[in-house]
Amino acid sequence: MKRHVIACIPGDGIGKEVLPAAMAVLKAAGEKCSFSIDVRQFDWSCETYAQTGKMMPDDGLDRLRDHDAIFLGAVGFPGVPDHISLWGLLLPIRREFDQYVNLRPVRLLPGISSPLRDKAPGSIDFWVVRENSEGEYSQIGGRTGLGDDEIVVQQAIFTRRGTDRILHYAFDFARRLDRKHVTSATKSNGLFHSMPFWDERFAAVAAENPDITTDQYHIDILAAQFVMSPERFDVVVGSNLFGDILSDLGPGITGTIAVAPSANLNPERRYPSMFEPVHGSAPDIAGQGIANPIGQIWSGAMMLEHLGEEEAAALVMQAVEAVLVDPELAKTPDLGGKSTTAVFADAVRTKLLEL
Amino acid sequence: MKRHVIACIPGDGIGKEVLPAAMAVLKAAGEKCSFSIDVRQFDWSCETYAQTGKMMPDDGLDRLRDHDAIFLGAVGFPGVPDHISLWGLLLPIRREFDQYVNLRPVRLLPGISSPLRDKAPGSIDFWVVRENSEGEYSQIGGRTGLGDDEIVVQQAIFTRRGTDRILHYAFDFARRLDRKHVTSATKSNGLFHSMPFWDERFAAVAAENPDITTDQYHIDILAAQFVMSPERFDVVVGSNLFGDILSDLGPGITGTIAVAPSANLNPERRYPSMFEPVHGSAPDIAGQGIANPIGQIWSGAMMLEHLGEEEAAALVMQAVEAVLVDPELAKTPDLGGKSTTAVFADAVRTKLLEL
Ligand SMILES: CC(C)[C@H](C(=O)O)[C@@H](O)C(=O)O
Ligand SMILES: CC(C)[C@H](C(=O)O)[C@@H](O)C(=O)O
Repeated sequence: MKRHVIACIPGDGIGKEVLPAAMAVLKAAGEKCSFSIDVRQFDWSCETYAQTGKMMPDDGLDRLRDHDAIFLGAVGFPGVPDHISLWGLLLPIRREFDQYVNLRPVRLLPGISSPLRDKAPGSIDFWVVRENSEGEYSQIGGRTGLGDDEIVVQQAIFTRRGTDRILHYAFDFARRLDRKHVTSATKSNGLFHSMPFWDERFAAVAAENPDITTDQYHIDILAAQFVMSPERFDVVVGSNLFGDILSDLGPGITGTIAVAPSANLNPERRYPSMFEPVHGSAPDIAGQGIANPIGQIWSGAMMLEHLGEEEAAALVMQAVEAVLVDPELAKTPDLGGKSTTAVFADAVRTKLLEL
Repeated sequence: MKRHVIACIPGDGIGKEVLPAAMAVLKAAGEKCSFSIDVRQFDWSCETYAQTGKMMPDDGLDRLRDHDAIFLGAVGFPGVPDHISLWGLLLPIRREFDQYVNLRPVRLLPGISSPLRDKAPGSIDFWVVRENSEGEYSQIGGRTGLGDDEIVVQQAIFTRRGTDRILHYAFDFARRLDRKHVTSATKSNGLFHSMPFWDERFAAVAAENPDITTDQYHIDILAAQFVMSPERFDVVVGSNLFGDILSDLGPGITGTIAVAPSANLNPERRYPSMFEPVHGSAPDIAGQGIANPIGQIWSGAMMLEHLGEEEAAALVMQAVEAVLVDPELAKTPDLGGKSTTAVFADAVRTKLLEL
């Protein structure tokens, strides 16, 4: 029987609730499809920081290295500044393991209503391909000057290699999906150096992929287009920051961030890839056991697909969709239901075993 | 009779069509409210660039300096790279005249349908206060390295002075509106230096304004909130880039960018302020005379208000709203009607004179 060794980092807040719930679903998929999941738990979080002054041990990254994948809940909690917690755990993992692709589906699921008018399930269905290792997210910069004269410099770094590889990924991915259109997010009218460069590389990579049509929009109008005509998109590629914004806005137009998944991929498979929901640690509802586990479960399905368990991945999503449209099986409160994390996830597990 | 001397820069594309149409409406408001508008026309555009290699003459900024306000159409046209045209005309005006506030209403007008479900006119009604003079929009940076080793650096510069003054403006503005809540757009979990600084200054300025409640969201989730619960916002303050994105997304949720206005303000009135629609030059429909003039007209209303002509400003918007709900007076094609720019603007003018 095939065995997948997974590093699980529940992290903070609702991460600790949705991750185990989702893992039970993935294990059930393993039972059905004859593979096992070997979970190695890493309790690194803002609590670790409170105790040790670090989000993870010094050899943390090394301890993750030899896993088949990393399954992450959420990072960040009040009391630890966000830039400390995220640059202490999530972002170093993305970088150290060269997870330069952040892949996020934007899809309106059955049983979830969009805030947009007249959208049927499936009518919104596209992908955001986000650069995940460089760009605007950078620790380069600093402060100078005292009091009123203080000045802060924040540098964004775009490399040709880093830009080209994410653009190539976007085109290859569109071809694999057989949805042969790629949209680029830019802002070359305002950001004087980085975005004209991005546009140049997009044009160059597009020229190498003549079978795929393209367009590009400045991020401001592109955000508006997500709301006004989401049907037009197939694959949208953006820098680290623009991809981040678009891949929360996408789930926004499909009803809720709570269900959205993401894959942080090292496509060459030299290092483990990481799978995590788009939502955060949600301190406001943490500890109540009512968090929606779908984002974590869907992330798990993406992980199974990455591990070569396509059939299991499909079953997991079929089970999620079946539970979502079943009026007997109550949803979590964020979707208007009265269920708990555990009850909902268990309904998915049960449905999956019946499929 | 009071006289306002206005520098008009129609610019490119539909700017040349909507600006004169709007100016006719503003002049009619002047007739009704006993002031005159003295128009000084400046034909600076991408055509100027094609002829002279510059978007405006060397002494362009000086020639604008002594006007009561600047009324701008749109800048940018295919053939001239966006970063050349914008950094050659629009952005230098904003900076030279210290127009550090970019103020943009997000309001669902009667007669325009939102892409969001169940929104009545007026149910979406808030303001974006955007920093307009520094931050991510910067010409500092550049390229180094050859071929595959090329690296591009883009610097964002945030000053304490620049940050504090926009935050103070946002709080003062909220107080003036009697809507005592300010939301800050941040991304301090990813942008390591600039946004933690922004948050610090927001907290400091908030502490000086205890009568005003606050909250803050990372830009990714904030964008999603614009779609999922736009009713909750009163005044949203953001950096140059975040404000830019949010103030296109805002018009997106209220139906169309075409009607959205903006004011580039120098609150101290040491220099002229500038008023322009949020939309661009729309090369795809330029020359057809069918562009929607509402964004330009509404910008004109904001200009009148800035000039102390509050009554005239209110009449202009009353006339726009009256025409929008009058089924006899056809809208422009972007709103599903068959009217032209000229016919629509003339209907507004006629209605205004009747009020
Ligand atoms: C044209 C562009 C440089 C400009 C900006 O980003 O400021 C525009 O989008 C705006 O919002 O006024
Ligand atoms: C938590 C934060 C640093 C992170 C990001 O911006 O990358 C999150 O928003 C995401 O999208 O995964």
